[in-house]
Amino acid sequence: MSKPDTSNPEKEGLSRREMLGTGLTAATVAGAAGLLTGTAGTLALSGSPAKADEVEEEQAKITVLPGQLDEYYGFWSGGHSGEVRIFGMPSMRELMRIPVFNRDSATGWGLTNESLKVLTEGLTPATKEYLASIGRRTFENGDVHHARPSYTDGAYDGRYLFVNDKANTRVARIRLDVMKCDKITELPNAHAVHGLRLQRYPRTGYIFCNGEHRIPVPNAGKFLDDNKKWHSIFTAVDGDTMAVAWQVMVSGNLDNNDADYKGKYVAATSYNSEEGLTVADMMAAEKDHICVFNIPAIEQAIKDGNFEEVNAVKIVDGRKGSKLNVTRYIPIAKSPHGCNATPDGKYLVISGKLSPTVTIVEWDKLDDLFAGKITEDDTIVGNLEVGLGPLHTTFDGRGNCYTSLFLDSQVVKWNLDEALRAYKGEKVTPIKQKIDVHYQIGHINATQAETKEADGKWCVALNKFSKDRFINVGPLKPENEQLIDISGDKMVLVHDSPSFAEPHDATMVQASKIKPIEVWRRDDPMFADARDWAKKDGITLESDNKVIRDGDKVRVYMTSAAPVFGLPQFKVNKGDEVTIFVTNIDSIIDLTHGFTLVNYGIAMEVAPQATASVTFVANNPGVHYYYCQWFCHALHMEMQGQMLVQEAGV
Amino acid sequence: MSKPDTSNPEKEGLSRREMLGTGLTAATVAGAAGLLTGTAGTLALSGSPAKADEVEEEQAKITVLPGQLDEYYGFWSGGHSGEVRIFGMPSMRELMRIPVFNRDSATGWGLTNESLKVLTEGLTPATKEYLASIGRRTFENGDVHHARPSYTDGAYDGRYLFVNDKANTRVARIRLDVMKCDKITELPNAHAVHGLRLQRYPRTGYIFCNGEHRIPVPNAGKFLDDNKKWHSIFTAVDGDTMAVAWQVMVSGNLDNNDADYKGKYVAATSYNSEEGLTVADMMAAEKDHICVFNIPAIEQAIKDGNFEEVNAVKIVDGRKGSKLNVTRYIPIAKSPHGCNATPDGKYLVISGKLSPTVTIVEWDKLDDLFAGKITEDDTIVGNLEVGLGPLHTTFDGRGNCYTSLFLDSQVVKWNLDEALRAYKGEKVTPIKQKIDVHYQIGHINATQAETKEADGKWCVALNKFSKDRFINVGPLKPENEQLIDISGDKMVLVHDSPSFAEPHDATMVQASKIKPIEVWRRDDPMFADARDWAKKDGITLESDNKVIRDGDKVRVYMTSAAPVFGLPQFKVNKGDEVTIFVTNIDSIIDLTHGFTLVNYGIAMEVAPQATASVTFVANNPGVHYYYCQWFCHALHMEMQGQMLVQEAGV
Repeated sequence: MSKPDTSNPEKEGLSRREMLGTGLTAATVAGAAGLLTGTAGTLALSGSPAKADEVEEEQAKITVLPGQLDEYYGFWSGGHSGEVRIFGMPSMRELMRIPVFNRDSATGWGLTNESLKVLTEGLTPATKEYLASIGRRTFENGDVHHARPSYTDGAYDGRYLFVNDKANTRVARIRLDVMKCDKITELPNAHAVHGLRLQRYPRTGYIFCNGEHRIPVPNAGKFLDDNKKWHSIFTAVDGDTMAVAWQVMVSGNLDNNDADYKGKYVAATSYNSEEGLTVADMMAAEKDHICVFNIPAIEQAIKDGNFEEVNAVKIVDGRKGSKLNVTRYIPIAKSPHGCNATPDGKYLVISGKLSPTVTIVEWDKLDDLFAGKITEDDTIVGNLEVGLGPLHTTFDGRGNCYTSLFLDSQVVKWNLDEALRAYKGEKVTPIKQKIDVHYQIGHINATQAETKEADGKWCVALNKFSKDRFINVGPLKPENEQLIDISGDKMVLVHDSPSFAEPHDATMVQASKIKPIEVWRRDDPMFADARDWAKKDGITLESDNKVIRDGDKVRVYMTSAAPVFGLPQFKVNKGDEVTIFVTNIDSIIDLTHGFTLVNYGIAMEVAPQATASVTFVANNPGVHYYYCQWFCHALHMEMQGQMLVQEAGV
Repeated sequence: MSKPDTSNPEKEGLSRREMLGTGLTAATVAGAAGLLTGTAGTLALSGSPAKADEVEEEQAKITVLPGQLDEYYGFWSGGHSGEVRIFGMPSMRELMRIPVFNRDSATGWGLTNESLKVLTEGLTPATKEYLASIGRRTFENGDVHHARPSYTDGAYDGRYLFVNDKANTRVARIRLDVMKCDKITELPNAHAVHGLRLQRYPRTGYIFCNGEHRIPVPNAGKFLDDNKKWHSIFTAVDGDTMAVAWQVMVSGNLDNNDADYKGKYVAATSYNSEEGLTVADMMAAEKDHICVFNIPAIEQAIKDGNFEEVNAVKIVDGRKGSKLNVTRYIPIAKSPHGCNATPDGKYLVISGKLSPTVTIVEWDKLDDLFAGKITEDDTIVGNLEVGLGPLHTTFDGRGNCYTSLFLDSQVVKWNLDEALRAYKGEKVTPIKQKIDVHYQIGHINATQAETKEADGKWCVALNKFSKDRFINVGPLKPENEQLIDISGDKMVLVHDSPSFAEPHDATMVQASKIKPIEVWRRDDPMFADARDWAKKDGITLESDNKVIRDGDKVRVYMTSAAPVFGLPQFKVNKGDEVTIFVTNIDSIIDLTHGFTLVNYGIAMEVAPQATASVTFVANNPGVHYYYCQWFCHALHMEMQGQMLVQEAGV
């Protein structure tokens, strides 16, 4: 874990860009670089291309000038920040944060009734009971590991983005039309969702979720001291309903997974086949395994009644030795980690983590494996030594693979076909290039790489340490996302991008695939409950500004139109349960309003044509202003009103 | 609020850069640009500088190549996100988020005992009572308007960063040695802190806080229907203790403020001199005012006992007509907004908002004003028409001012000396240049501009709308921070940077001024309480791994050293109140550990050599894993343990 030596620019693996960069301050570069001959309006070129400078050429590639648009959406899983981020690529600019498992101060995520419904309705009864016992309705943190857009026939279809929460064992769905989370499902019986990937064919379909840790099933206080009775659980969630479809009990701890392009198989890397509890116990065996799930066979087992129902979920036994023909365990060198399907639909690449190898499995051989015609080892068609600490592999659609090397802090480019031939004994050199990344790379992903439309333009290295790469921000450092140009024969490292806790993983999608709306539709399901309340109260949300008293419950309906709230003032009694519905009747693009209630801890976003609502007990007496916190007008600051909270007997 | 026309690239005000950019896709630029002649290792130049292309030249200036460092820290006030962000400049990369008023999923801000102490101990008794009545300990949102680094003699001294929360009327301090918030103070009697600036001389000193809204003082349920008895309150907080030093009751709503360079005066813009409640009432008068506070006079009034004590704070009457000589009200055209001291220490520039003018006040004339020798109008030494919707002004240290124009969506550059001469009748043209920004600019700030060391290199335009400037991310759009090069005769717009809710304001500081530590000191006050508990329990935090039972309270002490927690497992009973102390005994830079407890909603950061702790009730029975969520080692994923929660009677 010591700091890699970067003092010698001639060191193998340092890119030419870095050599150029070494020792130059930004000011030096600013003064010396950039004198390109040209005329205004066109970028006419002169000079010999042979003399082209790589630094300038590459920087121009990633430069998205003011007024220009990025070519890709990057969906960043924000790790333990609990959020999802939308990036523009190749500029590496963070365009938006989507709160999911976290609380968000600006939008009121976790505070508004609309977000609380999303956050609470998919929790298990046991979790609801636990949270109620400590006076809470939701968890307030999450650990987003993977963000994956939905597929139709192996290509992105722009409907949804699915993410998992390792911290509190949940899966969430984000609507890509409005870029908001609309469903969160807690997985019963499983513990910590680590890997998440999607059914690619015919469409998504299933969300495949790896329960990492082994626990008693159900986890109700039994077998605390007998970990031989603990189990890991694999879950398939229905992407259309976000209900748990089925679960499979497995052997070992599940890590990452990936699905084929035919809708038949999904495979998961698995560590701790020893089923130990300490690092030493988990490292004892020479080999661990990947667990292959046969989807039609699991569906058949459920039809046949071959399951146990625990916490209202059907669990099929897929452990080693199970009589059901639903899983196979293919032995792989110790602690395999990454699990990535090649975009040609033929292979699965397993990255070795503690073994310096990648192992290649051929999907089509799995039919024969499940039919008992071949052995587990027969499904392996490649095994290549790539470097120390291989974690994940991505693809360029031109037959090349890019594997992250955590211990070496490098990315290695290798050729798939040559790796297959080398395994057959042919004398070829599949390794094409290695470059340094900074430092300790985890995930890696390339544009469109997880679809049949992999286009091999850009690759992002998500590095876990940044150390000295940025000006010092104290003991807590950012991670470092590095952009690599993979469009040519050689990888070129082009940009360092710091990130906060963390970029766990990222998926990059051609911009044309995603078509969000600009203004909410008034019949959107996100505020269906508000419409129901309005109907009950005889209110037209888009025009009425009224206070409805219902015992000690008060419902306040108001519109917002820059720079005025429909209600300039309203009065309630201390102790009332107050619900405020704000409907933004502006329909201009980007004209989001906000509603902040001073000294009440309340703030929410109300985007164009949306309704948002919040419920609270008015226990803080006196005059409390509400104001619009989303800048909307020259008189934005004057967009305010007062809630008067009457103290009894005053 | 309609979308500005950008279809015609010849339109006046569009920068040359934008004209070049118009119609070119990033791919086109990538293919055509960047062929600079040069040799590896040095950026030798050929070709005539006269042919230099502005686009390339400017892009090279803001390019901070991989491995290079930025020249400035940018301290971004994250608006209603409730956080502070650290940027690297000129690369405009977000290096770190500092949670302040918000909850943070990754670091456990708002969940750990250390952060809860910061968030709760400065709340007023009334707020504590209110929050307790609804089952909470803290507010969970904030609206950070201004982030300002501490001064010694008019220059940044690198000690602290101070920020204000408009939403819940608080002020916070961030330690710049560790980049963490260590104190939060709620201001009693005031309502919504809008403007915040610092005492510049001899040092900070006072934090000057504008209470924006008029409320009853105290706000305890009286005078709800009689807003003539409502008041705005100006507060000075002691930056060393973070206690409220004193307050001044004023006329009108306070907006922004700024202090002089001599430690004598602070001035605040004020709207709604009418003291109305609706937009129409607030707009009735032709003129509003700035309120000037005489700091020595206020201190003297308090010494003399000329104050009223409300909620344990001394309030001096500074309203219009007060007999105390502590304030003066200088009439200014309707609804003045920005309030910015020039770096030469001589002037204060007031931006007109609803008037197309900036008004210049001379600090040194204020002595005579308070002495009754001159009138309020005599302190005004300039009044320049600059464009529609002037909001804020910043400076380059070479005598030029840059004012944001909200309605025009432009930045106007004007010369201070010429503006003063024009006011005296001289025929000069102070306006030097206008450029378009995109869209609806609010704050603007330049490097070091608020110190006597203003260096005039970069300027950031913080625009409230982005509309069509980025690929579409749905109804909620990012704001747009634009970087402007102000080092030359002409402003040049060089970069669009999207931002999430929001960049309210930003301050940029030369990197050499800030010297954070890399690893926590074991005697840091941030975890003093943990040390106290350890002492009581006979525990050495840095080496002991023990569980202490104390009735139904359980204290769990463990170390973390990659890749192992000191305790692999511990057992508690359902219903126990459990406190877990984790001490990171790794001292390698960037080796932060985390502690996440699965299905318990608990996660916290433990940076190198820090201790963090969390207290919860173990009401969720069964086996619960804890794991390190801050990637630390090749066996990071195996860094885990189990909390066994015993159900009574099982």
